[in-house]
Amino acid sequence: MKIDIITLFPEMFDSPLSHSMMKRAIEKDLLEVNMVNFRRFGSGKHQHVDDTPYGGGAGMLLKPEPIFQSIEEINQRSPMTNKRIILMDPAGKPFDQSMAEEFSQEEHLVFICGHYEGYDERIRSLVTDEVSLGDYVLTGGELASMVMMDAAVRLIPGVLGNEVSAETDSHSSGLLEHPHYTRPAEYKGMAVPEVLMNGNHKLIEEWRHMESLKRTFERRPDMLEKRKLTDQEKAWIKQWQEKD
Amino acid sequence: MKIDIITLFPEMFDSPLSHSMMKRAIEKDLLEVNMVNFRRFGSGKHQHVDDTPYGGGAGMLLKPEPIFQSIEEINQRSPMTNKRIILMDPAGKPFDQSMAEEFSQEEHLVFICGHYEGYDERIRSLVTDEVSLGDYVLTGGELASMVMMDAAVRLIPGVLGNEVSAETDSHSSGLLEHPHYTRPAEYKGMAVPEVLMNGNHKLIEEWRHMESLKRTFERRPDMLEKRKLTDQEKAWIKQWQEKD
Repeated sequence: MKIDIITLFPEMFDSPLSHSMMKRAIEKDLLEVNMVNFRRFGSGKHQHVDDTPYGGGAGMLLKPEPIFQSIEEINQRSPMTNKRIILMDPAGKPFDQSMAEEFSQEEHLVFICGHYEGYDERIRSLVTDEVSLGDYVLTGGELASMVMMDAAVRLIPGVLGNEVSAETDSHSSGLLEHPHYTRPAEYKGMAVPEVLMNGNHKLIEEWRHMESLKRTFERRPDMLEKRKLTDQEKAWIKQWQEKD
Repeated sequence: MKIDIITLFPEMFDSPLSHSMMKRAIEKDLLEVNMVNFRRFGSGKHQHVDDTPYGGGAGMLLKPEPIFQSIEEINQRSPMTNKRIILMDPAGKPFDQSMAEEFSQEEHLVFICGHYEGYDERIRSLVTDEVSLGDYVLTGGELASMVMMDAAVRLIPGVLGNEVSAETDSHSSGLLEHPHYTRPAEYKGMAVPEVLMNGNHKLIEEWRHMESLKRTFERRPDMLEKRKLTDQEKAWIKQWQEKD
């Protein structure tokens, strides 16, 4: 996969790209990341990339030209790739696991990271996706794009190897994960549940399934609305509801 | 504000902390960030911090001891601060702007970042908050904690200065932002809307309000459910509904 990042702060990506999973994806040639600093396409001696808004108001806006020129440069450098051009924007579609899966199957992702300011509306005409990391405001799109890259790149076959099965993670199964325990069997007065110690795998599976559902029921009932519940799951939920 | 980050990858934070807003918050003495690499508290010659799960299954789990010892060290170093101890966890409460606002008012934040694996359940007994960045799976808690730090630190008075008014951002007002335009008045055949060019501030305000509501109505109707609509807003929405 190729990733281009259009940003004023390319150096912000240095350390996140040179550790852990992202580092290995690059070393294994499964990922190539390029930075496009759009300051180069700014206007005048000071290479301005922003300007005041029409109609007045506080704050500065990203001018359209530097972003259009960045995309042009990427198109010239990689004319043959299918590009997904993603605008980091709090008004965009909320990022989720299914979007991460989609992105992981793309040939070429391009992230446009703004900073502080709004965008000139015409920049939206360039993009295939407008995506928000979540319902919070960030200083820039840089960290948001790092998160989306991480969520997508780890799903590229060969990146994680056998270290972890992406499928058992929370959110992939539609339920939150059940509690986990490792040694010691007792720590500061807190013991590991009996069921996990007795080696009965049928009981262990059942306990994990129930705890997983219970945690989802208690913390994220919204996730259950999308789920087709089994009879056993319905019975457990009924029991917890009657307890309340 | 003090922030401690409990992580196996302290270097991942280097470049995000040394640019832009975070850099300035540190330079202005409004923020102090410490790293606690919990590898130091691992066991044996290889300083293992993980172990296999009781009850079997794939993947390794973070052992309780290294995290308990990291918190102890932080408590010894900063005995007097009120600490908010935040576990990065996909099963946690979804992070949002009101949580960012809460965090921004704290004296001392402690982020616990896992990596790849699950946590021994007893680690949860240490924390005040279990927070998820969103409904997607990340390789580790590091990027998630950077995002939360960014969202919180930019709200500390004095950090942003007059550069931007945090209040007009998307999500702070409960509506998405209206479209913005800057020069040139026409670019690649796309013109700035007339209303923004005529200097009538009452009309401009009304247009922006309506566009802001319209974008929210089209993209994020869920955000409107929480909003008390004015009569004007109800009339606009009725009009758009009839159009469909």
